[in-house]
Amino acid sequence: MSTKGTNTPANFASDNVAGALPQVIAAVTEAASAGAMPYGNDPWTERASVRLRDVFECDLWAFPVATGTAANALALSAVCPPFGTVFCHPASHANTDECGAPEFYTGGAKLSLIDGPDGKIDPAALQTAIESARPHGVHNMPPAAVTITQESEAGTVYSADHVDAIAAIARQNQLALHMDGARFANALAALDVSAADATWRRGVDVLSFGATKGGAMAAEAVVFFREDLAANFGERRKRGGHLLSKMRFVSAQLDGYLSDEAWLRAARAANAGAANLATGLGTIDGAELVRVPEANIVFAKLPLPVLDALEADGFGFYRVGDDGTIRLVVPWSVTDADVDGFLAATRGYILAES
Amino acid sequence: MSTKGTNTPANFASDNVAGALPQVIAAVTEAASAGAMPYGNDPWTERASVRLRDVFECDLWAFPVATGTAANALALSAVCPPFGTVFCHPASHANTDECGAPEFYTGGAKLSLIDGPDGKIDPAALQTAIESARPHGVHNMPPAAVTITQESEAGTVYSADHVDAIAAIARQNQLALHMDGARFANALAALDVSAADATWRRGVDVLSFGATKGGAMAAEAVVFFREDLAANFGERRKRGGHLLSKMRFVSAQLDGYLSDEAWLRAARAANAGAANLATGLGTIDGAELVRVPEANIVFAKLPLPVLDALEADGFGFYRVGDDGTIRLVVPWSVTDADVDGFLAATRGYILAES
Amino acid sequence: MSTKGTNTPANFASDNVAGALPQVIAAVTEAASAGAMPYGNDPWTERASVRLRDVFECDLWAFPVATGTAANALALSAVCPPFGTVFCHPASHANTDECGAPEFYTGGAKLSLIDGPDGKIDPAALQTAIESARPHGVHNMPPAAVTITQESEAGTVYSADHVDAIAAIARQNQLALHMDGARFANALAALDVSAADATWRRGVDVLSFGATKGGAMAAEAVVFFREDLAANFGERRKRGGHLLSKMRFVSAQLDGYLSDEAWLRAARAANAGAANLATGLGTIDGAELVRVPEANIVFAKLPLPVLDALEADGFGFYRVGDDGTIRLVVPWSVTDADVDGFLAATRGYILAES
Amino acid sequence: MSTKGTNTPANFASDNVAGALPQVIAAVTEAASAGAMPYGNDPWTERASVRLRDVFECDLWAFPVATGTAANALALSAVCPPFGTVFCHPASHANTDECGAPEFYTGGAKLSLIDGPDGKIDPAALQTAIESARPHGVHNMPPAAVTITQESEAGTVYSADHVDAIAAIARQNQLALHMDGARFANALAALDVSAADATWRRGVDVLSFGATKGGAMAAEAVVFFREDLAANFGERRKRGGHLLSKMRFVSAQLDGYLSDEAWLRAARAANAGAANLATGLGTIDGAELVRVPEANIVFAKLPLPVLDALEADGFGFYRVGDDGTIRLVVPWSVTDADVDGFLAATRGYILAES
Repeated sequence: MSTKGTNTPANFASDNVAGALPQVIAAVTEAASAGAMPYGNDPWTERASVRLRDVFECDLWAFPVATGTAANALALSAVCPPFGTVFCHPASHANTDECGAPEFYTGGAKLSLIDGPDGKIDPAALQTAIESARPHGVHNMPPAAVTITQESEAGTVYSADHVDAIAAIARQNQLALHMDGARFANALAALDVSAADATWRRGVDVLSFGATKGGAMAAEAVVFFREDLAANFGERRKRGGHLLSKMRFVSAQLDGYLSDEAWLRAARAANAGAANLATGLGTIDGAELVRVPEANIVFAKLPLPVLDALEADGFGFYRVGDDGTIRLVVPWSVTDADVDGFLAATRGYILAES
Repeated sequence: MSTKGTNTPANFASDNVAGALPQVIAAVTEAASAGAMPYGNDPWTERASVRLRDVFECDLWAFPVATGTAANALALSAVCPPFGTVFCHPASHANTDECGAPEFYTGGAKLSLIDGPDGKIDPAALQTAIESARPHGVHNMPPAAVTITQESEAGTVYSADHVDAIAAIARQNQLALHMDGARFANALAALDVSAADATWRRGVDVLSFGATKGGAMAAEAVVFFREDLAANFGERRKRGGHLLSKMRFVSAQLDGYLSDEAWLRAARAANAGAANLATGLGTIDGAELVRVPEANIVFAKLPLPVLDALEADGFGFYRVGDDGTIRLVVPWSVTDADVDGFLAATRGYILAES
Repeated sequence: MSTKGTNTPANFASDNVAGALPQVIAAVTEAASAGAMPYGNDPWTERASVRLRDVFECDLWAFPVATGTAANALALSAVCPPFGTVFCHPASHANTDECGAPEFYTGGAKLSLIDGPDGKIDPAALQTAIESARPHGVHNMPPAAVTITQESEAGTVYSADHVDAIAAIARQNQLALHMDGARFANALAALDVSAADATWRRGVDVLSFGATKGGAMAAEAVVFFREDLAANFGERRKRGGHLLSKMRFVSAQLDGYLSDEAWLRAARAANAGAANLATGLGTIDGAELVRVPEANIVFAKLPLPVLDALEADGFGFYRVGDDGTIRLVVPWSVTDADVDGFLAATRGYILAES
Repeated sequence: MSTKGTNTPANFASDNVAGALPQVIAAVTEAASAGAMPYGNDPWTERASVRLRDVFECDLWAFPVATGTAANALALSAVCPPFGTVFCHPASHANTDECGAPEFYTGGAKLSLIDGPDGKIDPAALQTAIESARPHGVHNMPPAAVTITQESEAGTVYSADHVDAIAAIARQNQLALHMDGARFANALAALDVSAADATWRRGVDVLSFGATKGGAMAAEAVVFFREDLAANFGERRKRGGHLLSKMRFVSAQLDGYLSDEAWLRAARAANAGAANLATGLGTIDGAELVRVPEANIVFAKLPLPVLDALEADGFGFYRVGDDGTIRLVVPWSVTDADVDGFLAATRGYILAES
């Protein structure tokens, strides 16, 4: 007998499985009904920019694009020369999941991998790597930038102190500090600090501000907190094919996403779902929580036959390796029924196994 | 006294000024309401692919992207090595308006400019250029591809015979033939032939199928008619940052655009508007039609004070040089009132001038 | 009966056909006999640098490399971003004969062709091109540099006034000025000015100082007259594979080449040979001098059967097109017998034809 | 009292410190005395090619270049697309000492590091890396090539079985196998097998055949054992600026190097010197041999004050880290006095220390 209830089995494969926030749909629909000048010379783009300034409480230079890979790779190309080194975590999206986009956009820069527990760069390891980066002078690629992911790919969040430590090292070595904020809202909700306190006040120079995973259709923004780094970014975006002709349709998404704290409320819902999922899994004998989730990603370990059964039911998640470890990403659209349904099914299949 | 009527002055600056077709908005809204797997593993992307196969009456390999620059540059990178030559018209968008995207995506290929009247490549000039391309062997970049724009930037349309002539030269010299179809619908409507007869049956290998200008928000597709050329295109798109995580929002646009011949009806409306505009301008003493428009772009020459007055009223168009020549691009959303309003204002200002 | 005398028919196909100056061979042989630290940390490299400073009467930053293509492409990559425009003459080596090296090294910059008579950029055309380079802002590649060839590919030499005019335009528009000096010695000998007066005192920022054609085996140097432009050039040279491990063997060539004015004496010999060749051809009915040579390259037009006969004899030259125009490049090793032999043979075959 | 004898202290910093073999100097001098057509259309280049065919007992496609970095990076660009992955050892020159040349030439490919003891790739680790390379399909860079260094940077030599194991994995996964043979002669002398048995008979597809370190001035060759991989390599070399105009001066070096087994005799001398150095160090209390050298590189560990004293005397070596480990590279020009002098000085300073 299937443990499947009347609800559709939840899909925790990615936060990209969710649709779009009502505020986003409304904004796009409204933008579609009117004419406007192309390439960002439109009121929606201006509005998105103003919203970002309000959110970050500072002057900034924002460039909307449609994908996170573009945001990251373009941002890195603005802070690292073709012959430079970018330090990143081995698990970072830039290293593992962008098919070489950073290398492509920078013109051949090298990603140097700095490990650290829980998906986060260890500052001491970064310091060591920088010191030993150029034993042979021009034969080695000079350090140029550090990139950190907030929320990290391991579902953890860099604390303010952690970012401070990395920023201090970056500053002392004249490296730019980039933050991959594909799940920035989830991190912010978890940290419960202001956007400013999470970024430029900590020393972040440029942020990939993600909205797609958080509830937009296809909208991100490269946000520079230093004007000098933004010079010629317009040209870089254009030659990458990322300057949208009807830009307002991306800008409107950002505008809707940022309106009425829609983005933060959505992120809080996702984080709460992840917490509930983790709590529930913790009560199931035979289920193992790999790490207490800090935002909206849960790593757990379940018996392989249970995974097979869950997948057969239609539940969505991502297997990490062959040992039963799975990644569950909780989207903003999560419901209590989604969480409860997954927990019930898991509990049922584990009982059936034992 | 202003000649401006009760209507808003029409904006003929670009077809990108128009919003989105109702079918596109509806499709996107519907896609937003449901979950789906990311990166194109979704029903909308499958449906868009099926629609394209139906439209082109053949097997094909379609890759949705969000911008025309991406479509062109990625397509060229698939058919030209880093050390190769792409032949294009001097007025082509690839040469003039993509900030080096073709050079960037190909890894440094050269655009070799082949002139020809009315924005179209002259086959004889192409033949000569190919023959004289490599007087010094490896010192010269080997010819690899030809790209033609349909509808051309001059508002003209390549006839079937013209494409045949270019395709024959390409084939004899083992060059790939790419078509920049940013305004493919307008060209098709003008030619009144099938999509198949306009492309692969003529020898086109890969098409940048444009939908944004034609009524989508941000949706194009690189369409390969040869499977061998599409190999690794997935990787190329990804590393360019053009694989959308919530791909369905681009695919849904294509789906809506192609449904019920919405795209062709929209193109016919735009072309009809351009014809009316041209006819009207032809009846105005002091207005000069540069060329009879073949699709939805009109080039005309008006006295400079008239242009100033029209701009002051809020009419939109693009000045080409300093001599009063302007480009008027008629969007799918054009109304009779738009055309009549522009003609009336023009006539009025010319009379006032004389 | 062959007009061929006892001498070997001269090879005017290229100045690369000549061997190496005795001073160069001696310097290399001397360098080969001793050990030294690699990668330029050696006395020969220091000596070459000192010699260049003496020659140019200024502080400078010199980077030896083995080929002229590398010198040009690397130099341009130091002064033009990937999304920038380099202005050059259509006949320039960078445009016609480097298989895309400038595009490769810059990461995709565009060569914008500025024509002008006698192989030299027309300043007015340059000014116009700069002014009209960016009608569409970020859609167009911003002007970044100008490159001129001294001696030009047409065998002409830019006068001081001509360089001044171009340099003024470059300076007003914040463009770097690069000089391709593959035949710099020939130009200098023709102008009869100091190296300083021919370069930095005229506004040249970076020079590809050629020695190979002038009598070295494989030695060029990228010479920066501005320290800021040389920043990171070491890394650029290394990643291009142009940092020689046993650098002293290139540096020694430069050292020998520059010793005792060997380079200038060699260039004067070549120029004198070209003058004699041109004068001689001017006295032959049926031979047409295309242009009075200003340094060591002669363009002439001869009947096609005469060319066939000369080639059959073993004379070397390069046919430009199909109409009998040929290019004769006179190497430093030219002898009176070389010139006289060619003239005699030409005269003989023309008589036989008529 | 200095232990320094009458001889100059030996320089074991690099094999690049040595001059050139007499056969090389003679060949270059001879080539300098005569004219020849440029760009490799000359008898020396033909002769070098014939010599390589004789040495490798097969048909092959050889492309002389002037540096090892160029040879490696160009070779990898011929076997790996811009979006592909090259597997290499962390200690490989391509990874550590080429300032991103492989990334530059491939257009952004990724070097994936495969560890293994003694500077050699572990086949099992390679197999695992290939299997886990693409968990996310197009998001990951497809494996394209493996590169191994023979003699390795650790002074070890891949056995025939070891190369077989790697080649089998490469073949099964359609990866090209590249060998960085900067010290190929030393490896060959150590293995005491034919060049064919060390390369293509083992499955090597393309070899960077090094001659510079082995006794040339600046001469390497990219040697393809498969014609398909060599297609367009001429264009790649040219656009990298590595096609020498007076190619004969590089080709002549290869010709001289390969004549009369000069290269192998030189390599045997270097290897013997390294063996003597290692044997001698093994007899010194307080000196520690890190690894028994297999060719011409010795790693040893000495007390830091001893290193200071040796350096003060003028002995050359390279410090690896801070713990007294040094690398001694024995050049072809080594003499017994060089080895004995170093051993005597080391022994003396250690005694003085204790």
